[in-house]
Amino acid sequence: MRMRRKPNLKKRLDKCAHLLVKEPELHRGKWLSETPYEELHIELGCGKGRFTVETAKQHPHALLVGLEKVENVVVIALERADKQEQRNILFAANLADDLDKFFEPGEVSRIYLNFSDPWPSRRHAKRRLTSQSFLEMYKSVLRTGGEIHMKTDNLPLFEYSLEEFYKAGFEFLFLMRNLHENGPVGVMTDYEIKFHDLGVKINKCVVKNVIERV
Amino acid sequence: MRMRRKPNLKKRLDKCAHLLVKEPELHRGKWLSETPYEELHIELGCGKGRFTVETAKQHPHALLVGLEKVENVVVIALERADKQEQRNILFAANLADDLDKFFEPGEVSRIYLNFSDPWPSRRHAKRRLTSQSFLEMYKSVLRTGGEIHMKTDNLPLFEYSLEEFYKAGFEFLFLMRNLHENGPVGVMTDYEIKFHDLGVKINKCVVKNVIERV
Repeated sequence: MRMRRKPNLKKRLDKCAHLLVKEPELHRGKWLSETPYEELHIELGCGKGRFTVETAKQHPHALLVGLEKVENVVVIALERADKQEQRNILFAANLADDLDKFFEPGEVSRIYLNFSDPWPSRRHAKRRLTSQSFLEMYKSVLRTGGEIHMKTDNLPLFEYSLEEFYKAGFEFLFLMRNLHENGPVGVMTDYEIKFHDLGVKINKCVVKNVIERV
Repeated sequence: MRMRRKPNLKKRLDKCAHLLVKEPELHRGKWLSETPYEELHIELGCGKGRFTVETAKQHPHALLVGLEKVENVVVIALERADKQEQRNILFAANLADDLDKFFEPGEVSRIYLNFSDPWPSRRHAKRRLTSQSFLEMYKSVLRTGGEIHMKTDNLPLFEYSLEEFYKAGFEFLFLMRNLHENGPVGVMTDYEIKFHDLGVKINKCVVKNVIERV
């Protein structure tokens, strides 16, 4: 079911146009040279942008680009960032599929994957954001030593992802099941707050790209 | 170089004889039925027993058996446990090599591996306590759902062990590099306190035995 287009969506998007990158492919290889930031971080499927904005605050030296295809949703993220006047954020209403068209090899230092769609059917496994073809793309855009930070409440997706990260040659830096067991840790997404309150266990892992570039 | 035998070693060992299991093979399959505890935990290479005693305090429902071959060292562990009147501890002056002679399949709920000898030469890889033959033995004595808790400051040993755990089919529950980055976490060994104070990073992982017993 497609969500009904929000009223005034175009007007609202236009109001935050300075935060919305229309053609991310035009910035390929130039994200950092065009801005005053030292590192490029990206979030795939940033939803309403709560995590994006809070995380950008914690890493003022980095430019954080949030990708979120659904315009009804990204508009909320845009308004949130705009309201808080957080400058080291940009959004793009795009899918992760074309990541290598938006970012040059080695241009990205960190990728956030928060509560991605688990695509539970094996038939759809290739659509999972931690399937091999996506991981190969991440390895290409990530610099050596660049990291992927993943959180999910979906245990089958978590197990699947650990296996795929391992197979793709990533190095494990951190892994925790029930991340918030002893109280909330780090920046949480809207979804995460809601489900953590309901007692759902949140899993997190961080892996490192160890591929040396020639 | 062999350490000089401590003076009065025999006398000191005798004084703590109630905590020292002379022939652990005689207790195989009976560790829990002979005692009032609900679970059996073991520590391989428990050294001077600081971790052993503090961990036993935190798990009063479990019997903790510390294995430490070096008598000059285990005597200190024995005296420590004796002095603190910690009742859910036993020690055995044995190596981990014969674990399956001491414990019945599925009898053990948890294995601690703290700062094991890294055996850095590839020629000696089989002696590492996380090599495949040891892991197979651990899988046999651990119950389904039983855990291995490993800590080391030796990064090559840590990487090697992650790989071996994965190959042996263990499930990863926890992984952290620089465990004490934001202040000391959990019970520390004597060695760990000393090296953490010197700024050495401590790595920890916890894996779960998922083999179903028939």
